[in-house]
Amino acid sequence: METLRTSSAMAARSRALRAEDRVVGFVPTMGALHEGHLSLIRIASALADVTVVSVFVNPTQFGPTEDFDRYPRDLECDAALAEAAGCDILFAPEPADVYPRGHATVVHVERMGERLCGAARPGHFDGVTTVVAKLLNVVRPSLAVFGQKDGQQLAIVERMVADLNMGVEIIRAPTVREADGLAMSSRNAYLSAEERREAPALYRALREAAALYEGGERDARAVVGAVRSLIESGSRAAVQYVSAVDAATLEDVAELRPGTMIAVAAHFGGTRLIDNIVLP
Amino acid sequence: METLRTSSAMAARSRALRAEDRVVGFVPTMGALHEGHLSLIRIASALADVTVVSVFVNPTQFGPTEDFDRYPRDLECDAALAEAAGCDILFAPEPADVYPRGHATVVHVERMGERLCGAARPGHFDGVTTVVAKLLNVVRPSLAVFGQKDGQQLAIVERMVADLNMGVEIIRAPTVREADGLAMSSRNAYLSAEERREAPALYRALREAAALYEGGERDARAVVGAVRSLIESGSRAAVQYVSAVDAATLEDVAELRPGTMIAVAAHFGGTRLIDNIVLP
Repeated sequence: METLRTSSAMAARSRALRAEDRVVGFVPTMGALHEGHLSLIRIASALADVTVVSVFVNPTQFGPTEDFDRYPRDLECDAALAEAAGCDILFAPEPADVYPRGHATVVHVERMGERLCGAARPGHFDGVTTVVAKLLNVVRPSLAVFGQKDGQQLAIVERMVADLNMGVEIIRAPTVREADGLAMSSRNAYLSAEERREAPALYRALREAAALYEGGERDARAVVGAVRSLIESGSRAAVQYVSAVDAATLEDVAELRPGTMIAVAAHFGGTRLIDNIVLP
Repeated sequence: METLRTSSAMAARSRALRAEDRVVGFVPTMGALHEGHLSLIRIASALADVTVVSVFVNPTQFGPTEDFDRYPRDLECDAALAEAAGCDILFAPEPADVYPRGHATVVHVERMGERLCGAARPGHFDGVTTVVAKLLNVVRPSLAVFGQKDGQQLAIVERMVADLNMGVEIIRAPTVREADGLAMSSRNAYLSAEERREAPALYRALREAAALYEGGERDARAVVGAVRSLIESGSRAAVQYVSAVDAATLEDVAELRPGTMIAVAAHFGGTRLIDNIVLP
């Protein structure tokens, strides 16, 4: 596995790969790799000739009071995990390389980034879309793999890639979960033992929503209410939102249907967790 | 010369050209081609193997009270002129192809688009950067040629291309002028005979600024004041702004130096004209 530390080195390597007609697959990450990321790398590696993984804790997608400084960083460990999962090129640039002095461009997706997580994290998705646009332009992959766990991010990235005619295939990869159902997340490491015990309440409630849907319930408001009650009765979590939206457009739906995403965000102590399911 | 009417056809053609290792040069236009555009096409054609010219009157860069509806359109005439200047592929998409239903992405360059022309045309440069990003991603040229006449647009596009790691070389082409000094512009067609007689006052004033600079004057405020007085005494134009800025960053300068752009916008009757010079 090669490690590249600058955008110019990565862009040059990528130009050479394209000249050789190699199919490049890309997995952007913020590091702190867990089994969820590794599943994305394995998918990319199965679909592409060359798999590029970026590790970059992107400052512009953190709010001023968020966890940018304490976000877990261990490049050596990430490199070993990525390589074992099939990564061929690890791209790990520094913030000053990604955002040199004078950087002034923002890629903004209207409406979709302002709701759900965006309501509590103003500017977050502008940070995501801007850095993803930059990384896609540096790596120039044929395909890029994103996890369904960050379902809003995925829909927004799909919108951006289509709108800006970026010509990259976006692959939706299923959420990887712990044995008790908790969606894998780098932020799970922040949970106390007690919070960790309670955190599977999110997925339990989402599974119950799926069961209600399978049982014939179509009323979004009733199911959203049930999910909220289940989380609140099964844990001490402070629910930030439960929403039923179209998984592609993120618009609220009144009636559940295939492709509806039921998404939830809740605080367990100081840790904000998100999860979602998409109805089949 | 080939004419392509959809982004997907253009993207496919461009993929084929890249597979053949052809150097693609690109000139984006809104049509109504004049000698200024033709000079850009000739420059692209001299530098590239294949020259692509887009003709697209971009609705998102016009304000609600601006001239989108009456902007001159004549694709047949544009096609003949472009071909004679060296265009190999004319890309002329429809608005519904460029902005399909649900389009929601905006590329925004902070600060640079809010001053000079941006102060009078809010949102204009977001329209420009968004469509240029899209066109560059569809055409995927090695180089793209823009005219110095739209100096603010040029600086903003350069910033965006660098910030989003687009990997396209931007070529600055000199302003082409009528015999009496008036910068060529599709909007010159709106001028009455009398306005047309007075319009060269802009360039006369800019030339006087250059002469003052060559004579040793370095005070930006003095030169800007002189330019404004010259325009106002030499015509009935309503000056919108005269500014001395860094041609790359668009920041105001107090002291003139090589690379300072002196830029002006003024109304001649209902027609808004712009012009600029960059100090050598």
